[in-house]
Amino acid sequence: MFTAVDIITTKRNGRPLTPEQLTWVVNAYTAGEVSDEQFSALAMAIYFQGLTDEELFALTTAMLKSGVTLDFSDLGKPTADKHSTGGVGDKITLPLTPLVASYGVAVPQLSGRGLGHTGGTLDKLESIPGFTVDLTETEIRDQLRSVGGVICAATAELAPADKKIYALRDVTATVDSMPLIASSIMSKKLAEGTDTLVLDVKTGTGAFMQDEDAARQLAEKMVWLGKEHGVATTAVLTRMDTPLGYTVGNAIEVEETLEVLAGGGPADVVELTLTLAQHMLAGAGIDADPAEHLANGKAMDAWRAMVTAQHGDPHAPLPIPPHEYTLVAPESGVLARLDARAVGEATWRLGAGRQVQGQSVQATAGIRLHAKPGDRITAGQALMTLYTETEDRIAAAQQPLESAIEVAETFTAPDLIIDVID
Amino acid sequence: MFTAVDIITTKRNGRPLTPEQLTWVVNAYTAGEVSDEQFSALAMAIYFQGLTDEELFALTTAMLKSGVTLDFSDLGKPTADKHSTGGVGDKITLPLTPLVASYGVAVPQLSGRGLGHTGGTLDKLESIPGFTVDLTETEIRDQLRSVGGVICAATAELAPADKKIYALRDVTATVDSMPLIASSIMSKKLAEGTDTLVLDVKTGTGAFMQDEDAARQLAEKMVWLGKEHGVATTAVLTRMDTPLGYTVGNAIEVEETLEVLAGGGPADVVELTLTLAQHMLAGAGIDADPAEHLANGKAMDAWRAMVTAQHGDPHAPLPIPPHEYTLVAPESGVLARLDARAVGEATWRLGAGRQVQGQSVQATAGIRLHAKPGDRITAGQALMTLYTETEDRIAAAQQPLESAIEVAETFTAPDLIIDVID
Repeated sequence: MFTAVDIITTKRNGRPLTPEQLTWVVNAYTAGEVSDEQFSALAMAIYFQGLTDEELFALTTAMLKSGVTLDFSDLGKPTADKHSTGGVGDKITLPLTPLVASYGVAVPQLSGRGLGHTGGTLDKLESIPGFTVDLTETEIRDQLRSVGGVICAATAELAPADKKIYALRDVTATVDSMPLIASSIMSKKLAEGTDTLVLDVKTGTGAFMQDEDAARQLAEKMVWLGKEHGVATTAVLTRMDTPLGYTVGNAIEVEETLEVLAGGGPADVVELTLTLAQHMLAGAGIDADPAEHLANGKAMDAWRAMVTAQHGDPHAPLPIPPHEYTLVAPESGVLARLDARAVGEATWRLGAGRQVQGQSVQATAGIRLHAKPGDRITAGQALMTLYTETEDRIAAAQQPLESAIEVAETFTAPDLIIDVID
Repeated sequence: MFTAVDIITTKRNGRPLTPEQLTWVVNAYTAGEVSDEQFSALAMAIYFQGLTDEELFALTTAMLKSGVTLDFSDLGKPTADKHSTGGVGDKITLPLTPLVASYGVAVPQLSGRGLGHTGGTLDKLESIPGFTVDLTETEIRDQLRSVGGVICAATAELAPADKKIYALRDVTATVDSMPLIASSIMSKKLAEGTDTLVLDVKTGTGAFMQDEDAARQLAEKMVWLGKEHGVATTAVLTRMDTPLGYTVGNAIEVEETLEVLAGGGPADVVELTLTLAQHMLAGAGIDADPAEHLANGKAMDAWRAMVTAQHGDPHAPLPIPPHEYTLVAPESGVLARLDARAVGEATWRLGAGRQVQGQSVQATAGIRLHAKPGDRITAGQALMTLYTETEDRIAAAQQPLESAIEVAETFTAPDLIIDVID
């Protein structure tokens, strides 16, 4: 018989927990037999003492087995899935899903909503008139078979332990623990039953993991966990010091997605979409250059099919923001810094994000950038435009932006993609 | 405005909290505005990161101010109080309170019940027929004025923050944190409004703090906290590797108390009682040798007055245990070890203690020792007698005792009193 106090004490004292102890505590917590205060003490002890590989594996397995696990092996096509640790302006899931699906791969993107300074994929998609993110498992399966790409909400039955643990960590300052992050992401993703998994692990001011070494370590652990569970897993380590693309928000990011699917779009968004697509296709055994389907419209066709299948109108105009405000360059030179976190925070304040779970978000709130780091700018030129449905938020949104910009004589933007770990 | 997450994060990251933050979090937790899971995460962060002196002072002050604070300055006599960190067979409060009171000192001993392997002072006293431990503040005050000594339950209004925090720490493996122990003890004791405080800080297998250095550090912190709050505070560092005296339990410890008050009793119990009494009397400005009042019966008179005032019958026979079992010496030699924790655990299993708060305890359950470390023993001689009201507990009670005894060729018991810190 295990007790929560013994388990917390063991971890607190730096001794490893057995797989049986970890399985017990995850199941007992999910069932409400171990209390919130006990699990939060355990999470804090893990924050300080870490987990061995064996513990991390056992914890992840217990969490992924805490609910239903999906199995798409009967679809008759390979499945590939992507996860990003989250960044500002990170709309990559939107063009990537139909792009990969257009090659005959099933792409079940079970996604989340935004909380805090990074946006939520589902919030962005819901700015498309009619689009629904709540699908049943049967609907997901049918859509994967017919259209190939699905971006929808994770069902409550998927890794319920992770949902409960994540909500707890969020209020107890135990979010930024490497093994807890790895087990949270991987338990969800492994429960989705994919053959191939590509992880976009971001580092920089706008990322969850600001430190590159920590991000690399997280990527390595997640790749290891995926492979141990029989999933072909690759991690791409990418820079998140400045927003991805020129748009941050909800509808405004869909707009940029359409540019990419039309064969244009910002260079960084295209580069990252293609890199992730290549790894997903390679994992699915498909030897192709994904740039082709951006150029020939097949990715756009797959997007329209997906939006239509999820009751959205791919031809409906996106909503227009009623209020806007333009910030201008304070001096001439080369834009050397445009801080991702500050832009994310400003976007959140404009109404694109939520303060607490369950709040609604503004479809049209967001920021359009007119220059990116490395660009030459002239004093007085438009640097970014702020959009909102509530005009009085514009003042508050400017606060985080005050120290977000740096102008220098010269600056060359560093490579977006730092490394590939597999 | 403070938030719990910011406060937990600050401590987790090893940065000090301000007095305002600590006051806020203690009050918000006591009021239920900070959740159990948040405070337990904070407690675990404190376990790992510790507290600076300034933080410890602020935490203790916030806890002691969380409820009513008593003030006995109108009694017209000095007040002195004693606290023990708890040990096996530690009945010292029982003879000490009337002994010190017999010199004209008010001794308000607000005590607790036992939980786990150490017994509770209140449980012991309740084995006296009629004795009540629940007094109102007015009754306490009246008894201090008339009789001088009071041993009763702490009212719920006294340091409620400590009660809530202690209950939380108990289930979250955050009990053994030096600053949390120091703030818990001192917030309660300082709320009792005494002029003089003597702390019996125990170290050894039967103590809360097994490590001598840790116990010394705890003693130093508590003495510092007491003095900072204007209370003359002394700590006596004592050894708790073997039980105090020859009795462990409830009624059986009262019986030994009576021996001490009659001028006899075990040498270690007498030595510790006199040492603590000397420091309490000195703090109260009284220059006397407390051994005199043990010898001339004045301490016994004060005991009887106290028991009578609390509705007990000092002449009633103590209850007799219905079942007993004697353990004999396995070999001849000198008893070199008689482990305090094992004896405490066995006593608890016999029914003298409780598993969860609120349970009743057996008045007659306990263990009588027939030899102590340093005593010469002969194989087959009675080593200890186990008493219980539930015969089937005797087998379980013997388990912890199996490895509790060591016989050697020679052994000299170490000094009981290790040091005095003031």
